Amino acid sequence: MLARGVNILIVYAHPKPDSLTGALKDVAVQQLRSDGHDVTVSDLYAMGWKAHADTDDFGEVEQTNFMLASGEAYEAGTLGADIRAEQAKLLWADAVLLHFPLWWFSMPAILKGWVDRVFTCGFAYGAGGTAIPRYGAGVLSGTRAMLVVSIGGREPSYSDRGINGRLDDLLYPIHHGILYYPGMDVLPPFAVYGALRVDDRRFEEVADDLRERLSRLEKLPPIPYRPQSGGDYDRTLRLEPGRESPGTTGFDLHLTG
Amino acid sequence: MLARGVNILIVYAHPKPDSLTGALKDVAVQQLRSDGHDVTVSDLYAMGWKAHADTDDFGEVEQTNFMLASGEAYEAGTLGADIRAEQAKLLWADAVLLHFPLWWFSMPAILKGWVDRVFTCGFAYGAGGTAIPRYGAGVLSGTRAMLVVSIGGREPSYSDRGINGRLDDLLYPIHHGILYYPGMDVLPPFAVYGALRVDDRRFEEVADDLRERLSRLEKLPPIPYRPQSGGDYDRTLRLEPGRESPGTTGFDLHLTG
Repeated sequence: MLARGVNILIVYAHPKPDSLTGALKDVAVQQLRSDGHDVTVSDLYAMGWKAHADTDDFGEVEQTNFMLASGEAYEAGTLGADIRAEQAKLLWADAVLLHFPLWWFSMPAILKGWVDRVFTCGFAYGAGGTAIPRYGAGVLSGTRAMLVVSIGGREPSYSDRGINGRLDDLLYPIHHGILYYPGMDVLPPFAVYGALRVDDRRFEEVADDLRERLSRLEKLPPIPYRPQSGGDYDRTLRLEPGRESPGTTGFDLHLTG
Repeated sequence: MLARGVNILIVYAHPKPDSLTGALKDVAVQQLRSDGHDVTVSDLYAMGWKAHADTDDFGEVEQTNFMLASGEAYEAGTLGADIRAEQAKLLWADAVLLHFPLWWFSMPAILKGWVDRVFTCGFAYGAGGTAIPRYGAGVLSGTRAMLVVSIGGREPSYSDRGINGRLDDLLYPIHHGILYYPGMDVLPPFAVYGALRVDDRRFEEVADDLRERLSRLEKLPPIPYRPQSGGDYDRTLRLEPGRESPGTTGFDLHLTG
């Protein structure tokens, strides 16, 4: 169990509260609160979250480049109130859970839009000269993150030789590219396959598995990504030769040991 | 050069027309039209494209499951007019270009929302008993697709050992999972690295490269993904043993030869 009083942010993205994704979000909220944690839910659909990033997010800025304009707005405090609220929740949280269905092998657009708009320049990453430490360091260093993801297909098709690609690889752009980038410790995902075929009996099993997983949120070892500043990468940010176990390829190169 | 009169759909997703992404979209439109092709542009920001999929997209439906409800609406012809218009454009097109900046190692939310909302059940994929052929077959079989993607980082960090992951792997969920899934022939991406550092001289080089690439759109060999129905996969959709060249791993398993 987590220490009492830990702050947990759940970002939840499904259009239907009666969905499997919605039901598992409810399980998590109930369990974490009954364990004494402070839980905040960003229910993106219920909030009417604006998914598309545009210059309306920035207020008055001088930069013409979109990314640099977001950084200017962050520094000036002129980012939209909805964005600033989510950044504050991220800073408040000790752990962040993202609850979503896998749509087209990635997040639903509304959740991607939460990332695009909230993880601004200056907050989550630096541009050029204003470099901010990343990949294992950054504004969310020390915060734990975990995906709770519902998947329509069956597990073998997401296994090492499965036609859809291995789930760990499909999630790398999220795990490594979004969550580890600003410093979060990323836990293995909680994935439910065959989401269309989850009947009541199976749901209870899944809910129990999720409760058990949540009870170990603080103790679970994170995915052991290599920090950028750990000496494993050269000046061009390529992994130095010989750092990996023989035969390691692809995204697994960026795991230690 | 393409045969004259070929139909090309450009789906363009950047909030600023004066961006590198916007400028390269203009280059493509101008070149393709001057070569005699029929070009339709879906400028998602200018269209005010609704990014988040929800039940408002479906009209009156009986299904409670979100995915099945989208299929019911597709069959009944009650999908939103904006969605039906994009499906019609896809059916009209001989080639589809997606122009976007790589944000957080994937598409901007507004483009993901175009996929989430337009690639509905019944149109792009089947559910359960209503299986539709996929991965090398499907509604968009014979249509070519290519990404034109602007990337802030430098190329080595997206190379085989680069810290961000290899670009081909980062794009697999889009190339294979979204475009190849309903049958499109996916061409290698046109990627521009160091997007923040593209000055006028470099832009002219990039524009020339893009024009040259577009002139070969019809002849370029697609990425040789394995079709699902080609006998390479077992009943659980795992690649049969021994089909790959020795040492092949990860997403590359799903390439022939």
